[in-house]
Amino acid sequence: MSKPKVLVVGSGGVGAIGALCLSLNGKADVTLVVRSDYAEVSESGYTITSVTYGEHKNWKPHHIARSVADAFERFGEFDFVLLTTKNIPDGPVTCEDIIRPAVTSKTVIILLQNGLGIEKPMIEQFPQNIILSGVSLIGSSNINRVVCNLLKDQIYLGAWNNPNIENHEEKEQYAIREFTRIYSNDKYNKVFFDGNVEKTRWEKLLYNAALNSTTTIVNLDVSRCQIAGANDELFRPAMREIVAIAASEGVEISPETIEKFVHISDGQFYSPSMCVDARKKQLFESEIILGNPLKIAKANGVDAPVLRTLYTLLSMVQFRIKEEKGIIKINESEYKKLNSDCYPDMLKK
Amino acid sequence: MSKPKVLVVGSGGVGAIGALCLSLNGKADVTLVVRSDYAEVSESGYTITSVTYGEHKNWKPHHIARSVADAFERFGEFDFVLLTTKNIPDGPVTCEDIIRPAVTSKTVIILLQNGLGIEKPMIEQFPQNIILSGVSLIGSSNINRVVCNLLKDQIYLGAWNNPNIENHEEKEQYAIREFTRIYSNDKYNKVFFDGNVEKTRWEKLLYNAALNSTTTIVNLDVSRCQIAGANDELFRPAMREIVAIAASEGVEISPETIEKFVHISDGQFYSPSMCVDARKKQLFESEIILGNPLKIAKANGVDAPVLRTLYTLLSMVQFRIKEEKGIIKINESEYKKLNSDCYPDMLKK
Repeated sequence: MSKPKVLVVGSGGVGAIGALCLSLNGKADVTLVVRSDYAEVSESGYTITSVTYGEHKNWKPHHIARSVADAFERFGEFDFVLLTTKNIPDGPVTCEDIIRPAVTSKTVIILLQNGLGIEKPMIEQFPQNIILSGVSLIGSSNINRVVCNLLKDQIYLGAWNNPNIENHEEKEQYAIREFTRIYSNDKYNKVFFDGNVEKTRWEKLLYNAALNSTTTIVNLDVSRCQIAGANDELFRPAMREIVAIAASEGVEISPETIEKFVHISDGQFYSPSMCVDARKKQLFESEIILGNPLKIAKANGVDAPVLRTLYTLLSMVQFRIKEEKGIIKINESEYKKLNSDCYPDMLKK
Repeated sequence: MSKPKVLVVGSGGVGAIGALCLSLNGKADVTLVVRSDYAEVSESGYTITSVTYGEHKNWKPHHIARSVADAFERFGEFDFVLLTTKNIPDGPVTCEDIIRPAVTSKTVIILLQNGLGIEKPMIEQFPQNIILSGVSLIGSSNINRVVCNLLKDQIYLGAWNNPNIENHEEKEQYAIREFTRIYSNDKYNKVFFDGNVEKTRWEKLLYNAALNSTTTIVNLDVSRCQIAGANDELFRPAMREIVAIAASEGVEISPETIEKFVHISDGQFYSPSMCVDARKKQLFESEIILGNPLKIAKANGVDAPVLRTLYTLLSMVQFRIKEEKGIIKINESEYKKLNSDCYPDMLKK
């Protein structure tokens, strides 16, 4: 029996380490999509420093591809698509469009991404595919092909029920076992079977909704925000709102989980990926981190003024970056005689 | 009878135009304190473009001084100290300390400044002086001695009752009449006698608390914030909280006043002074604009989560600027092994 073929989409900190792990284990045939720096990676690979998998110089996966279409043409058809990109539904390309060229009827799609509500559009676009949902707690960055992985690679992996498929539970469980078989390695990492991955997503959202957004808005690392008083004044109040929204969906999060995430980067002076993205003037994941939970809050009648304020400010920072990059153009003279309540509609035109 | 002597402290947009107005009227002897660019102003004065008072090149007041002490020594004793500086009680020098060298028993102190709660420390420090409280709606900036005044000069002036003084009401009313006599000029400006200047301060706070803070945090002008959706998502919610806090103090603000301030800069692409200060990496007035109203909210049991979030984020932006300027120094290694809940105390040491 030939090895399963895995396409890793997204070559950031999570994707690069994922490809490395699958390659080292030797139980899968690994293709990595490398969009922006294909030439450099083809030439000299990655420099990797990983607390999980050690030091690697000039490391490359089995195959690298310029795009998902290129990968499919040259190395498909894939058993698994491991999606590790940022998820920006309001950006120029959705995740569904990114992976579409490589999705066939047999492809299991694994969303190893942050945020909430990312599975629904995926199932809508690929109603006949098995969708797994994963949360990574790895702490890894890839800056100019230098990959730095700070925390032990741990993945929480669960099924996202797809009732369109006959006997879907059985097939989903098989897919989880199969991916766990090729990815996990007792010596190094840990893949946890997650019977309630939705809850795990809500829990990780405590960190992302409160800390990613705050650090991005004020352009300070987590520890500096805490020195300036964020724990009591912002992080905990924001997290308590996430707990309330989750509860309105029947997901219970304990107060200890809040404390775990308040303290998880103590002493690290760590800048979350969203903050790093904003510094690089890249778009960031405000919709799946704050927009989607706030939609749920609204639908369920949960008050979330702190998160709503963070979300609005974050949208403005995103607006500023879009204008700086030329994605939005503002012609001031068009606004001169308008009532400011009409301004947002002008932008949509 | 000799002309009253006025010391104008603060040579920003409001102070420079105030000194100009008093000089043009010819009913006062005007001294302006010019701290940072004394040499340049002595040499060539100001270039002024004012919708109220016209164009003036190389304009200088009667006297200019390097400091308040210098002014008192050379041109005192003053009947009025017109204070137009920023008011930053948490900065290196308080307003009380700034004007102290020029305050004698006869000095009437006029606070022509933004914010709330600025009179109390003034009366505490100068218990035997008449204190007037004024709100300027002038829209004026002074950047490198080029003064640009966009709106007609209007001042709301009222007494801040000082019960330490015998017959204080009579004396306060006299001081208001006298300052109005030397400042007002029917052809140009307007000084309104304000029987409830506290209410006027709360009303202006609608603008400053919501718009100054938001524009400063995200580094966008008012109109761009509105294009990004600020009116409904941030400005009005923040203003409604100010209305609630004011109401808890017995000050009633009408919904029309909210709408007035939401639309007051429509089409202007205007950056409020706080936002300009942050861009110049100068400290800004977060305490008197947000800190003091939030203290009142807390004391009166009024919930203000939007303002509290803005205030916390603004404090972090202030923290970032202080560190960039070297006012705060963070030695990361001192924090490495601490619980992040202890971080704010480290800073106080």
